[in-house]
Amino acid sequence: MSIEPEELIRIARGDQPADLLFKNARLVNVYSGEIYLTDIAIAGEQIAAIGQGYQARETIDLQERYVCPGFIDAHVHIESSMLPPREFARVVLPHGVTTVISDPHEIANVLGLEGIRFMLQDAKYGPLSMFVDAPSCVPATNMETSGSQLEFYDLATLLGNDWVIGLGEVMNYPGTIQGDRRILQKIQTFKGKVIDGHAPGVSGRDLNAYCAAGVGSDHECVNMEEGLAKLRLGMTIFIREATNAHNLEPLLGLMTPEFSSRICLCTDDRHPADLMDQGSIDYMIRHAIAHGVPPVLAIRAGTLNPAEYFRLHDRGAIAPGKRADLVVFSDLQNLQPELVYRGGRLASENGQVIPWERPRANTKTRGTINVHLDSLDFSIPAESKQVRVIGMLADQLITENRVETARIVDGQAVADPGRDIAKLAVVERHFGTGRVGKGFIQGMGLKSGAIACTVAHDHHNIVVVGMDDESMLTAVREISNMQGGMVVVGTDGVHARLPLPIAGLMSDQPVAVVREQYDQLARAAAGLGSTLHDPFMALSFMALSVIPSLKLTDLGLVDVDKFELVSLFA
Amino acid sequence: MSIEPEELIRIARGDQPADLLFKNARLVNVYSGEIYLTDIAIAGEQIAAIGQGYQARETIDLQERYVCPGFIDAHVHIESSMLPPREFARVVLPHGVTTVISDPHEIANVLGLEGIRFMLQDAKYGPLSMFVDAPSCVPATNMETSGSQLEFYDLATLLGNDWVIGLGEVMNYPGTIQGDRRILQKIQTFKGKVIDGHAPGVSGRDLNAYCAAGVGSDHECVNMEEGLAKLRLGMTIFIREATNAHNLEPLLGLMTPEFSSRICLCTDDRHPADLMDQGSIDYMIRHAIAHGVPPVLAIRAGTLNPAEYFRLHDRGAIAPGKRADLVVFSDLQNLQPELVYRGGRLASENGQVIPWERPRANTKTRGTINVHLDSLDFSIPAESKQVRVIGMLADQLITENRVETARIVDGQAVADPGRDIAKLAVVERHFGTGRVGKGFIQGMGLKSGAIACTVAHDHHNIVVVGMDDESMLTAVREISNMQGGMVVVGTDGVHARLPLPIAGLMSDQPVAVVREQYDQLARAAAGLGSTLHDPFMALSFMALSVIPSLKLTDLGLVDVDKFELVSLFA
Repeated sequence: MSIEPEELIRIARGDQPADLLFKNARLVNVYSGEIYLTDIAIAGEQIAAIGQGYQARETIDLQERYVCPGFIDAHVHIESSMLPPREFARVVLPHGVTTVISDPHEIANVLGLEGIRFMLQDAKYGPLSMFVDAPSCVPATNMETSGSQLEFYDLATLLGNDWVIGLGEVMNYPGTIQGDRRILQKIQTFKGKVIDGHAPGVSGRDLNAYCAAGVGSDHECVNMEEGLAKLRLGMTIFIREATNAHNLEPLLGLMTPEFSSRICLCTDDRHPADLMDQGSIDYMIRHAIAHGVPPVLAIRAGTLNPAEYFRLHDRGAIAPGKRADLVVFSDLQNLQPELVYRGGRLASENGQVIPWERPRANTKTRGTINVHLDSLDFSIPAESKQVRVIGMLADQLITENRVETARIVDGQAVADPGRDIAKLAVVERHFGTGRVGKGFIQGMGLKSGAIACTVAHDHHNIVVVGMDDESMLTAVREISNMQGGMVVVGTDGVHARLPLPIAGLMSDQPVAVVREQYDQLARAAAGLGSTLHDPFMALSFMALSVIPSLKLTDLGLVDVDKFELVSLFA
Repeated sequence: MSIEPEELIRIARGDQPADLLFKNARLVNVYSGEIYLTDIAIAGEQIAAIGQGYQARETIDLQERYVCPGFIDAHVHIESSMLPPREFARVVLPHGVTTVISDPHEIANVLGLEGIRFMLQDAKYGPLSMFVDAPSCVPATNMETSGSQLEFYDLATLLGNDWVIGLGEVMNYPGTIQGDRRILQKIQTFKGKVIDGHAPGVSGRDLNAYCAAGVGSDHECVNMEEGLAKLRLGMTIFIREATNAHNLEPLLGLMTPEFSSRICLCTDDRHPADLMDQGSIDYMIRHAIAHGVPPVLAIRAGTLNPAEYFRLHDRGAIAPGKRADLVVFSDLQNLQPELVYRGGRLASENGQVIPWERPRANTKTRGTINVHLDSLDFSIPAESKQVRVIGMLADQLITENRVETARIVDGQAVADPGRDIAKLAVVERHFGTGRVGKGFIQGMGLKSGAIACTVAHDHHNIVVVGMDDESMLTAVREISNMQGGMVVVGTDGVHARLPLPIAGLMSDQPVAVVREQYDQLARAAAGLGSTLHDPFMALSFMALSVIPSLKLTDLGLVDVDKFELVSLFA
């Protein structure tokens, strides 16, 4: 509970007992870079004082355990965990994460402002401080049908909300560099707030142009050269360690005293299994320290630096007046959060979340699966003998643009297990337009059946891959029944399913259930022959028309290099 | 001139020539800490790009001279230079200072909001970016009559002004620590903006309480121990090098890579002669480098750090999109600004200010000397034989509380040259109340005549010291004629004068004239026997009732240790 300034000052002065006193705390001082023994007095949600001799209603002797500020994730798409904010909080809090800056661009592509408001509402009064970066690129391109389109005047409606602190990753860096008016209008709308970036591999004059537009950060750096080039131009570098992007190790060299204040940590996209088994920002800090980064620098990158970058001047450090978001741990060389306090209140103990009561709120979202199942037709009448085929590459999001001889049966182009070519379709699911993009994909390993999902960056239409049309129809029917989710279908029916009823992106079940369902999906897909490490992750990027070279949306095949729609038959 | 974002981006991209190109610039990169050769392209008021291959309408080959960001003075009372902002700008610009955070609490004590608005108006459209910290402590105490009193609701009227960026030094640290409601209301009013501090020697629980109140900086540190204690609690440390306070050398140890981002530089109060002969922030940077501080750290403390602390995200570094406030110099070990650019425009060259046209504005202030000369009476009827005497100490602002035997002539207590005791009076000059505080002071060295001034912290009433009442009356009469200023009077009339018609604090003359007049005053005072290094500076602190031990205001003698008014006769 928040207290009056007068009371906080009285407690800091020692004239009134604190609410809580940590005695014998080994304070990690992110300001001075020192670690020393002291006491920490808490009053309400805030730190009142640091030093000896304070009294409190409750005293905890930390017996020289370490205390550092709660961790801040500088950039995360919560939807990628397939969990809504309130359940996501239960997963990351035991890892010491007390504040996240979320860019809800996945749900925004489905539900627009309504989706962003759902996220804000679902996080409200919860144990995690979730700030929102307004999604800058909804939809990602005009070669797809997303459920919503957000222009600057839409985003402007979010400005009055104190939890909306900036503009989310400006992924349309080509547009920005070219001075695209719609992007610049959005940047202008958020003038005076933070503008976050996403500029993979951009350098030289283009990078100058991108920075000149007002973008202040980047989380796409993959090596020191790129990181340094961006840092030199004033960008704050968010080092990312996502489920499918591992940038921490190559960028450890940025975590020096000299650059220290300009480096933050972020997870971007992490699956439940990674969050549970490895962790979040705590994992990155552990990893950095294990690789020789001075502990206070690593901790600062996950606390003070993001607080200052995002102008969250009430947190990120342990000092009088700051929020009492704290992490207690025993081993500096292997930082494992033992106690996590958020606003002076215990939020997690030894990996277990403490129940967090809060007012009930209506956080229902409307159904988002709008498909006319009866008229659905995956057949592809053969127009010629040559088809373009999406060539998957092991563990990569980029694909090859291949041309293969079509396998034609009864005048129809069909899948060919012999050459590992499956049929791929993207079914528009937002407006019931009946639009279906169809094509072929090579490299899934599927022998029979179909798999489908409603997580498909960034438009999140239904992506379905299969070896026969009937299995594909069954898969989409199941998706429709679940109102979104992921499914593996054999010729004998549904093998595994993960319902994602919240916008077709997030589950309403506890994380343990989601994880188990996801594991079942992986096993079921492997049972059908899939050779991919994570077939659903792979599938979710096959419809993303901003990553080269050939992708499929509901509007058809996209030649990403040419940035245009191309015909299926070559 | 400001340009459209589209144009800036086009120039950054290299598709349109820049306005100005610095070729072969040795860029001091305050982000990365590096210094390297490159080109810098300027468009309008902003930096467009860093790198080779740009074209421009005007190209300047810097022949490997250094370029760093324009300097930022984190805390200055411009009035202490006795120059209004537009003339002050002409003095500091040649020293590379392009932005100052000014706390106009001197003029605010005389003219209140009207005075603050005068400062803003006088700085407007000028060559120096002058931001304002709203004065938090007007008046300093209730044991004096100042010309104005500013409550939180007065200060709130400044909030809408983009140039008002925070709350000025919270000098009433005892009140803050005690939870004084009027101070906390002011802090609350500026919540979300910076709250600057002033807490000399405050430590331990008191310092915790002061920080808990929300104060974020301090410029009163005098040694490493104090600096570190404050830095550990989250305060940003402004290292000060004023005319009468020299804190740079003892605090050089704070300028390390570890603390680097939390250290700023400020001048607080500097006289014209010091500004002209030594410099401003440039002097501090030179000094720090000469004492072994790594050059980039010293420069960062005078550029990026204050920009970030004050959330002036448009400046403080040389990067695309930032303001083109630049300093060109040749010698890193002896940084002497040669070219100073402000907003892409040359503002000073080799110490000479470039004329800066701007719209005419009405910046007249009303007269502030309101004294009934006819009824003025400095006589002190003897009430007893013992009087309290202010004991001056060489080069110190603190005084001793002495009791001496009064020299009594015709029933009147009078000055006594034999014991170096002069009469001191403080004449209320704001409201014509006729209030005159009278007392004695020991240690000025005056043999005859009188000296007087209207610069008297913080109420700025007329302080006059003299060996006979007639000379004192002549001095005050001259002050009234000048509508404020400083004067030295002998028994034969006025020996020297410095008119300060703007609020009794600032001259309307060029700095060279002010300096010459000030030097004449010093010579004239010495001619009357004054042994002080700077008698007017000393005099201006004899009426400041917050510095121990005995001071005089228009209400009478103040025992500062007891914080109460005391009688003259002991």
